Amino acid sequence: MGSGAIRFCFDYLSPYAYLAWTQIHPLAQRYGRTVEPCPILFAAVLNETGQRGPAEIPSERVYVFKDALRTALLHHVPLVPPPRHPFSPLLALRVSALPLPADQKKVLVDALYRRTWGGGGGVEDEGGVAAALVEVGLPAAETLALATSAENKQRLKDNTAEALRDGVFGVPGMLVDGELFFGFHGGLMHLENFLAGKDPLAGMDLTRFSSIVPGATRPQSVR
Amino acid sequence: MGSGAIRFCFDYLSPYAYLAWTQIHPLAQRYGRTVEPCPILFAAVLNETGQRGPAEIPSERVYVFKDALRTALLHHVPLVPPPRHPFSPLLALRVSALPLPADQKKVLVDALYRRTWGGGGGVEDEGGVAAALVEVGLPAAETLALATSAENKQRLKDNTAEALRDGVFGVPGMLVDGELFFGFHGGLMHLENFLAGKDPLAGMDLTRFSSIVPGATRPQSVR
Repeated sequence: MGSGAIRFCFDYLSPYAYLAWTQIHPLAQRYGRTVEPCPILFAAVLNETGQRGPAEIPSERVYVFKDALRTALLHHVPLVPPPRHPFSPLLALRVSALPLPADQKKVLVDALYRRTWGGGGGVEDEGGVAAALVEVGLPAAETLALATSAENKQRLKDNTAEALRDGVFGVPGMLVDGELFFGFHGGLMHLENFLAGKDPLAGMDLTRFSSIVPGATRPQSVR
Repeated sequence: MGSGAIRFCFDYLSPYAYLAWTQIHPLAQRYGRTVEPCPILFAAVLNETGQRGPAEIPSERVYVFKDALRTALLHHVPLVPPPRHPFSPLLALRVSALPLPADQKKVLVDALYRRTWGGGGGVEDEGGVAAALVEVGLPAAETLALATSAENKQRLKDNTAEALRDGVFGVPGMLVDGELFFGFHGGLMHLENFLAGKDPLAGMDLTRFSSIVPGATRPQSVR
């Protein structure tokens, strides 16, 4: 049991990534795995795939908040929307991309998530991010300077580019042993089966699935 | 227990709508509800919302087929991709939009789904749709003529427009007692809780959720 870490690709924007963050650690522990938080810029993923985010479509936005709240209540996880949404998660992501000891990184992401989806004042402003840093015992000014250094900005870009290369098209994207799992619903369940050695696809020939020929396609530039 | 029907909005293109179709009838029956199949043109929904379909993003396309197959295997539901995907579902949807007795409509949708995702030859061509009609005892030529009449084409358009008005942004979209549930994962679970009188949102004040102020937004015309 256990081997590679679970790379957890997330952006603070997504309530589903938040919900998955609250579940991934006990899940990983059950199978002797560790979690490697991998902040990525969801907006860059959307730009790359040409997709629109759920919050960018009015009807989907309404539904997603209700669905996320239903899910949070079922799992006894606090969920309160941040003051504004969507918001710029850039500084929070950059801070989360800093090289830190695993334990410290986890409590930092926890703190930033509490401020985003746990009823806090959000992480859009420097003040909110600084407060999270102080909360976990990191020097605010110094850490913010490191977070916005060219080297660290590049870390977030590299994380995002690597996630895209690994097939990530949304958050949460969870990568383990070369396999991608996506989303709270479905994704966590299939991930757990995979870690338990019960992936129903194990040993299957997926050629038929990976070689489906596109027929009719939809014109792209419609609206 | 029981009152309004569950309006099941679907397009043959979506493997998740297929998977949900295999579960919605026993689910509805458990709570004394009926299912009203409502074929809609997913491409028109995407056009309206400016969204791209999962099959239109290469990495998501790969993932969705694997995720759908994992889900099908867990639920002991046959799932074999159609000969081509995406494909034009228009004729199959039009046939499914015809006014037919509920029992006959159900077996017709079953037959069209078997041909699409159950290992059949697909429903893109008239021959495939005609075979499904014959299979359920409907006269092929006459039914196809009715399906492609101006009046019936309008039925499919009306279905789609009504679904959009009711907040549907993807398939399967399941509407019951004015509430929308979306998707196989999550959606069916929340729908079941709702029908069981256990919706965690019942009686909650959702003002905070319905009035979230957008902050930073992503430039739209990127790529």
